[in-house]
Amino acid sequence: MKRVIPSDVLEMIDKNQRFLLISHRKPDGDAVGSTIALGKILKQCGKEVEYYLDLPLEERLDFFEESNFFNKLSGKAPDVYVSLDCSTLDYAHKPPNFDEKIPILVIDHHISNSGYGDANDIRHLSATGELIEGYLSKLGVEPDEEILDALYTAISTDTGSFQFSNVGANTHYSVAHLYEKKSDFSHLAKRLHLVKSYNQMKLLGEAIHSLRLEEEGLIAYVVLDYETIETFGGYVNITDDIANIGSNVRDCVLAVTLKEKEPGWYKVSLRTGSKSGLNVAEFAKKHGGGGHLQAAGFDYRDSIEDLKKQVYAFYQTRSLNEK
Amino acid sequence: MKRVIPSDVLEMIDKNQRFLLISHRKPDGDAVGSTIALGKILKQCGKEVEYYLDLPLEERLDFFEESNFFNKLSGKAPDVYVSLDCSTLDYAHKPPNFDEKIPILVIDHHISNSGYGDANDIRHLSATGELIEGYLSKLGVEPDEEILDALYTAISTDTGSFQFSNVGANTHYSVAHLYEKKSDFSHLAKRLHLVKSYNQMKLLGEAIHSLRLEEEGLIAYVVLDYETIETFGGYVNITDDIANIGSNVRDCVLAVTLKEKEPGWYKVSLRTGSKSGLNVAEFAKKHGGGGHLQAAGFDYRDSIEDLKKQVYAFYQTRSLNEK
Repeated sequence: MKRVIPSDVLEMIDKNQRFLLISHRKPDGDAVGSTIALGKILKQCGKEVEYYLDLPLEERLDFFEESNFFNKLSGKAPDVYVSLDCSTLDYAHKPPNFDEKIPILVIDHHISNSGYGDANDIRHLSATGELIEGYLSKLGVEPDEEILDALYTAISTDTGSFQFSNVGANTHYSVAHLYEKKSDFSHLAKRLHLVKSYNQMKLLGEAIHSLRLEEEGLIAYVVLDYETIETFGGYVNITDDIANIGSNVRDCVLAVTLKEKEPGWYKVSLRTGSKSGLNVAEFAKKHGGGGHLQAAGFDYRDSIEDLKKQVYAFYQTRSLNEK
Repeated sequence: MKRVIPSDVLEMIDKNQRFLLISHRKPDGDAVGSTIALGKILKQCGKEVEYYLDLPLEERLDFFEESNFFNKLSGKAPDVYVSLDCSTLDYAHKPPNFDEKIPILVIDHHISNSGYGDANDIRHLSATGELIEGYLSKLGVEPDEEILDALYTAISTDTGSFQFSNVGANTHYSVAHLYEKKSDFSHLAKRLHLVKSYNQMKLLGEAIHSLRLEEEGLIAYVVLDYETIETFGGYVNITDDIANIGSNVRDCVLAVTLKEKEPGWYKVSLRTGSKSGLNVAEFAKKHGGGGHLQAAGFDYRDSIEDLKKQVYAFYQTRSLNEK
């Protein structure tokens, strides 16, 4: 892992004047935070900066003054596109008339990033924001409060408030640097991690209300039925706080969350613990879905009882392997 | 604020051999974590260490091997009592035959601590564990994994996973030092912050299920009635995750949580935002309770409708002040 900003990246910044910053579709806290922070850093270096992001932003991320400049494209071609937090260019939300002949600078923390840019700063840190924090001292920029908030947003959201396994010593050193410049991020942390709309809060409550444990507490089921979803806003992603309810119950091995998006038509989300010996992506694949070892999902249109039987059979394979 | 360990504290450790470590009643993560960490540090320095803590521990904190030594008192008098994380000696859980003639070493992060020890290390950092982290390098101790976990437990619980206003640059530097020695605390973070027993999880769900907003969403009510509490374990503290449900609803100004501990007899918890202009401790005091500006509580035995009227009148005073 390279721990410093590559020299060709610095050179590309130095030699060019007009930058258009882009990030991935449905931008999360790291996408928004690292984009705003880098944009303002480049402006302080005398560069012209434009932004093109997939709007609207989630409400918890929609408070930066700098976002007033989002998607106000002048029409002039940039010297460089900067792609932030995008592991592939396909995944990027590209502006209209995206010109493939214009050089791309890639700044990203995803290990899967192949380095599709003309210059690439790819380091496997907790968040792209953690990389951008290093640009402050390298480019000699004194951050204003909004840059600090943007970097805090990027890092704290992509690490689940510093709880995920992607956190390292570096992550905490980076955040310590932010605190050296601003003494209190507690209001921002609350906004990012705790505050919910009434409907989001109620859906979480209804999801927990529906929680049932089966197989002696080893398998958890959460069901958000169509009527409940309609009652509280009519739309729900299976957000992590809902998908993780079951897996956060002590001693539970496998968590299954069902969201009835149309009557009788379910979005299913699976979660398991790291030591379970189960690969939930395998189960999801059999149902036309996908995911990772510990988190996967698929669409399902059949009886819940039948699904439970299949889940139990899947759970049993783990027991057999262990015997 | 003194940033270094006072020399008389180091001298008291150096000159004595037998230490009995104590902490406050109902020990929290900081109490347990800083006690275990200091105990093991002292042992590595060749000292004899005994522990006396208020047991049982919360389940999420009950995993340290070192806790096998808790409350196994030899009966021999110690040279020094070490009081950790206790702002006053009254607040400490003291062993039987506590001998006031034996010197006390106080290590604490509470600003209200008057320095009741014969030597005192009182620094207003995020957690007592943050102070103890500094003893590692000062005493030349190479921490084992359990010391690292104990310090992480102390700091991450007392800061609400690094979200509270007590966090500073120092906090993140301290935790970075822990990560320099152990690369992944994610399982521990999940245990400390996310995992709940089935009953705890269900009570949270029922509490959110009961959430009602009044006065155009500005006042939130959560009620856990006697029957619900009986259904899920028969006992519930108004833990922060329950007391904060209302105050975490976007735009809500005042959150009122009622726990019916006996039929018709309520424990009431109040929470408000920092910018609300309301002092909930005042309201609680009128009802024979107490607390802080933003968090207070009291016992109540009357109709909920009547309480709501009083809460609304209290809320109105704030509006009047603002006019």
